[in-house]
Amino acid sequence: MLSIEDNELLTRVGRGKPMGELLRRFWHPVLLSSELPKPDCPPVRVRLMGERLVAFRDTSGRVGLLAERCPHRRASLFFGRNEENGLRCIYHGWKYDIDGRCVDMPSEPAGSNFASKVRTTGYPCRETNGVVFAYLGPPELEPELPGIEWIGLPEGHVYVTKRYEFANWVQGLEGGIDSCHSNFLHTTVPAFRRTSDFFDGLRSRLQFDAKLVEYFINDLSPRFCLRDTDYGVMIGTQRDAEADSFYWRITHWLLPHANIFGGVRDDGSTRLGRGLIWSAVDDHTTAVFSVSWALESPLTESERDACEAFSGAVVPGTFMPLQTMANDYLIDRERQATETFTGIESLQAQDLAAQEGMGSIVDRTEEHLGSSDSAIIRVRRALIRAAKDLMEGTEPPQAASPASQKLRTVDLIRPRAEGFDGEEIEALCRLR
Amino acid sequence: MLSIEDNELLTRVGRGKPMGELLRRFWHPVLLSSELPKPDCPPVRVRLMGERLVAFRDTSGRVGLLAERCPHRRASLFFGRNEENGLRCIYHGWKYDIDGRCVDMPSEPAGSNFASKVRTTGYPCRETNGVVFAYLGPPELEPELPGIEWIGLPEGHVYVTKRYEFANWVQGLEGGIDSCHSNFLHTTVPAFRRTSDFFDGLRSRLQFDAKLVEYFINDLSPRFCLRDTDYGVMIGTQRDAEADSFYWRITHWLLPHANIFGGVRDDGSTRLGRGLIWSAVDDHTTAVFSVSWALESPLTESERDACEAFSGAVVPGTFMPLQTMANDYLIDRERQATETFTGIESLQAQDLAAQEGMGSIVDRTEEHLGSSDSAIIRVRRALIRAAKDLMEGTEPPQAASPASQKLRTVDLIRPRAEGFDGEEIEALCRLR
Amino acid sequence: MLSIEDNELLTRVGRGKPMGELLRRFWHPVLLSSELPKPDCPPVRVRLMGERLVAFRDTSGRVGLLAERCPHRRASLFFGRNEENGLRCIYHGWKYDIDGRCVDMPSEPAGSNFASKVRTTGYPCRETNGVVFAYLGPPELEPELPGIEWIGLPEGHVYVTKRYEFANWVQGLEGGIDSCHSNFLHTTVPAFRRTSDFFDGLRSRLQFDAKLVEYFINDLSPRFCLRDTDYGVMIGTQRDAEADSFYWRITHWLLPHANIFGGVRDDGSTRLGRGLIWSAVDDHTTAVFSVSWALESPLTESERDACEAFSGAVVPGTFMPLQTMANDYLIDRERQATETFTGIESLQAQDLAAQEGMGSIVDRTEEHLGSSDSAIIRVRRALIRAAKDLMEGTEPPQAASPASQKLRTVDLIRPRAEGFDGEEIEALCRLR
Repeated sequence: MLSIEDNELLTRVGRGKPMGELLRRFWHPVLLSSELPKPDCPPVRVRLMGERLVAFRDTSGRVGLLAERCPHRRASLFFGRNEENGLRCIYHGWKYDIDGRCVDMPSEPAGSNFASKVRTTGYPCRETNGVVFAYLGPPELEPELPGIEWIGLPEGHVYVTKRYEFANWVQGLEGGIDSCHSNFLHTTVPAFRRTSDFFDGLRSRLQFDAKLVEYFINDLSPRFCLRDTDYGVMIGTQRDAEADSFYWRITHWLLPHANIFGGVRDDGSTRLGRGLIWSAVDDHTTAVFSVSWALESPLTESERDACEAFSGAVVPGTFMPLQTMANDYLIDRERQATETFTGIESLQAQDLAAQEGMGSIVDRTEEHLGSSDSAIIRVRRALIRAAKDLMEGTEPPQAASPASQKLRTVDLIRPRAEGFDGEEIEALCRLR
Repeated sequence: MLSIEDNELLTRVGRGKPMGELLRRFWHPVLLSSELPKPDCPPVRVRLMGERLVAFRDTSGRVGLLAERCPHRRASLFFGRNEENGLRCIYHGWKYDIDGRCVDMPSEPAGSNFASKVRTTGYPCRETNGVVFAYLGPPELEPELPGIEWIGLPEGHVYVTKRYEFANWVQGLEGGIDSCHSNFLHTTVPAFRRTSDFFDGLRSRLQFDAKLVEYFINDLSPRFCLRDTDYGVMIGTQRDAEADSFYWRITHWLLPHANIFGGVRDDGSTRLGRGLIWSAVDDHTTAVFSVSWALESPLTESERDACEAFSGAVVPGTFMPLQTMANDYLIDRERQATETFTGIESLQAQDLAAQEGMGSIVDRTEEHLGSSDSAIIRVRRALIRAAKDLMEGTEPPQAASPASQKLRTVDLIRPRAEGFDGEEIEALCRLR
Repeated sequence: MLSIEDNELLTRVGRGKPMGELLRRFWHPVLLSSELPKPDCPPVRVRLMGERLVAFRDTSGRVGLLAERCPHRRASLFFGRNEENGLRCIYHGWKYDIDGRCVDMPSEPAGSNFASKVRTTGYPCRETNGVVFAYLGPPELEPELPGIEWIGLPEGHVYVTKRYEFANWVQGLEGGIDSCHSNFLHTTVPAFRRTSDFFDGLRSRLQFDAKLVEYFINDLSPRFCLRDTDYGVMIGTQRDAEADSFYWRITHWLLPHANIFGGVRDDGSTRLGRGLIWSAVDDHTTAVFSVSWALESPLTESERDACEAFSGAVVPGTFMPLQTMANDYLIDRERQATETFTGIESLQAQDLAAQEGMGSIVDRTEEHLGSSDSAIIRVRRALIRAAKDLMEGTEPPQAASPASQKLRTVDLIRPRAEGFDGEEIEALCRLR
């Protein structure tokens, strides 16, 4: 439960809002590279933290991200001509380069130097692994790209999808770090009832980690051990394993808007890293970037198919989920009664039903949080504290330490007697 | 004409608003039983007086009406699993019974007593004659169900329909007690012009009450005699009959949101009682429950067909009228010129065109009320007075006296010399 | 660039707003006569300067424009019966003539004189050349119809279209007086690049004014010479012609909402006058009336076709453009790269993309105006001054001088040495 004031502080992303300013100290994924497939291709509308922007790829292949409206008379540069290293407004032909400089102003007399006085907002962009990141903060504080493992891997090792969610970014993030909800929202009826048939089937189907899945399914009320780190919070989820052991699953929250998770997978594979970045389109909308990656060798065809399926169906040619509040996420009540816990197809749509169903900004004054919500409580507090610190002049140290984000998740079976040795586990998660 | 303040007071139904509090002292029809056809069937979204709710029928067949959002993290219980006498949230499996008690909380450790501390809003429901009523007021003041004649009749004697109207509930109610508008809104061109052909046709077509219809049609400017009663207001509408007699038609308004009307029917039948209840979905939307009933024997097939036709066509599988403001109620201007007064098919759509056409909350500061509006003036005053009394601590006595609502309407031909003997007529209307 | 306050003052058209009051001193085109094709035809909804109205043509053929809602209980008179020189409300039969007088009140007793006390708003209308004009200002100040040349011409000499634009009326007007934008928004790629092929083709295609088009195309940064007049502002646009001459194109702005333009036309014809009137539907919507006219003889079939094409495609049976923001004006990016400057078909849709793309009320505090915007600056100042004058009690003199609006546009080639002799050119433009 939060006060009204803290809920506002936590969720509002506009320029000048405390959380909006905190977010503006970090890089945000905004586009897939494939949305701007080649030099001088059509521009694309972008909305990020409530700002109306237009992205384009110039003749040299660089991505520009400009304020949508021309500084002259405010026509939309979305309709602009993308030509010769600049975007030219259709109304009077003024042209801007990716930095926002006005490089041509044909409607003014030849001798005029007015163009040199006009500049539009042009935010820096960086492109890597098929994703365009943008930075909307003070130029002098521009950080390095995040150090997350997948950034900079060779081509073919990374698979990224983008999907819109019609809810505030924190609702998505809270789902992403909430290991406990998988036992309900994403389960099947036999798994929820923990029938012996279910476990028999599991063992015959899975190669590697049937045991881990069994532990996961069997313990509906996991305990959370938390560790504040230089990148955010390391979350250890403890489930009963054997009589004398616990199964630990590690999730990382990277301040402000990313998480890395992993662990048990139904296909028996553990070689893929997985993460999510919750990019705030505006107060009520989120662009969810879902990333899977492999270190040793490129992703196989079937791994890529699994990644695509994992992120759910969209309206073709868009990033809009097919299953929405307007169609009740295509819930099948018959299947809900007998097959799956929700009757909703696809993990992604199950999350949307939970997260969008709260309203676009959930009223956290009405919550009743239990011990299973301790990770969420810790992350909210860290976000609110960082936003308040920034208001008082202290920059978030996480922005300046991308190396701290070089992390793995791990699955561990440990004797019950040992407890949670956060320092040791954090060391296991660090990549060199 | 009302002041801005009185119009606000009259129309706003939210919790804490004076009229919202008054309405919360009474039972409201919210669902047809057929919307929850069997135990453990899918839940249904309900909106009542601006509150977001979810209704479900539990394993024992009882109807529950809960706040829509789970008190844990505010996921929507609409997507919940309806199972074993409770509704289980899909996000973390918390389960509630029809009283709002949390009866299972599997995400918390086995020893936890947190469930006993969590309770969601669960409003009492009563089901009778195919209708689910709900009570949203203080538990200690929960009244009996209304005493209206049809409540409790044997199966087959009552026919109820539900339709949405996109206007404030008072606009509907004002139409319901406005006997005068039928001479215009619901008439035909020959009737409006009172041609001799029309009356010849009428006499040959009707068995019983051609005379009453004739009186009704002939007098476009009826007079209203009003009597304050213990249930609300008894409205006597006086029309000229013969040279020495008046035709009196009696309508009852039952505070706060019901009316019983009757009298002349084109099919010659007078055996059916008819009433309307205007259930406030929110400030701008009303669920209209239209009820017809027969005392002596079950409704016949043709009577049921007539009842269904009376309440107008809907989008199949919904309670949304087919004829809406967006399609101009399918007005046929050619028919309007020559056949019917409005060119709009169906009595219900005619009412919607009048009532929704005012805007969802009519600006009563701009009205010019005539003598034909005296019943409306009286009813508004009674509602405003009751709401103000409640603000000052006086509970509405009508909530505590369902017996006073056991009423019939009557049609009377009386000598002109006699005038309106309210006491005598009220006695005629009382049921024993 | 304007202050927030001046931008509000410039754009808001509601009753009581300074600009709303200024506009209410003038006649506004609201309907094509063809929207009310014959006596007693169906009424039509009208919205003008934010007021909800209903127009009808009575039995005598006169057009009435009433407040939409009946003064009795506020039912919509749009559904009213149009019969025997009045519009009758469907709810209780009250009937109004075109002046707003209640001429029948059948629901009140025969002896009542209540009807004589009830009057609804009925605005004066004038109909000419297929256009219905309305006046919403103080009755005692009702002016003559504007003196624009086409008003009062014989039938067949005038062609008028009406289209909706989803932007404030000033955005449209600013486009209408901005001669410079045609070199960009409405051009082709070869013309923009000024290729020799383009000019060769031009000369072989055009009969009369290939030279003028050549001058127009060749000079992207025209200069503006402005002259305040008794009707508004005369705008002279100067482009280089030959080494020793300038090409002058004259546009008139008629305070508050009209402009007359002309000059170069691709079809070689100069016999047509052309003008636009920007009629404010509300703060965010404009009805654009586009007028073409011929003095000497009726418009030919091909001239009428050209006028229709000029104003762009609409959804059949409506005045809604087919090309909208929702479909990105059907921009064709391939054509934009190679054929036309915008890739958007039709001059009208090109203007919409520029003017609607700014947002429905452009934020003029963020503009950067150049020397090519001097006409726009002058017109804004004149509008703001006239609105402020009116607030201080000085009526706009333009309303009282329709004769001053009898104007033509002219195209002139003048020696460079001569400069802009405003007095002489204004005299050339005056019609006798």
